[in-house]
Amino acid sequence: MTGEAGNLFAALPGRRETEQITALLVNENLRIERIVSTGQASPPGFWYDQEWAEWVLLVAGSAGLLFEGEAEPRVLRPGDYLLIPAHRRHRIAWTYVDHPTVWLAVHFDDIRRA
Amino acid sequence: MTGEAGNLFAALPGRRETEQITALLVNENLRIERIVSTGQASPPGFWYDQEWAEWVLLVAGSAGLLFEGEAEPRVLRPGDYLLIPAHRRHRIAWTYVDHPTVWLAVHFDDIRRA
Repeated sequence: MTGEAGNLFAALPGRRETEQITALLVNENLRIERIVSTGQASPPGFWYDQEWAEWVLLVAGSAGLLFEGEAEPRVLRPGDYLLIPAHRRHRIAWTYVDHPTVWLAVHFDDIRRA
Repeated sequence: MTGEAGNLFAALPGRRETEQITALLVNENLRIERIVSTGQASPPGFWYDQEWAEWVLLVAGSAGLLFEGEAEPRVLRPGDYLLIPAHRRHRIAWTYVDHPTVWLAVHFDDIRRA
């Protein structure tokens, strides 16, 4: 167990079509992921609507995260974190194109429905 | 709930005697904290022995984390993460003195005993 160590910036992918998601820790109540975006955004009209809560930290790069009902995306920069409650509809409006955007996502509460 | 947002690097303390611990998210199964070290280390002979598990990410700065039974502290640099299972005895051998060391700590499993 103690060996479950690594570095968030290891083996960052180059530009690709989809986000890269890597599970760093998974148990029945919790899933911690590294997500690497390289310019992706949510498809037009698409909203995430998750059964579980997600706490997200932007570690590197930059992104715009739009909550339904808000006029403009929240611009996230390194160190910014926020809580996305279950069923709080949101979408990724944009991510930085020239450099990977690295997220740490902590999914919790009812992740068994994920 | 959606307003629970901030930046990990906001209002970093200057050098102080003790680590600064700020809870960012707390529920019954999970506690996410920002920990800022400014040169502190665990007292000589002291070992953390926690009832719950902790997943830790070093976001800025540097630190040496010693697990009992290992010959040398693991040197952690930005982006390094590791899992500390419950009851895995460990201590902080050193933290960087010239610049704050910022940790993200995710405590989970049996945190009600914390």
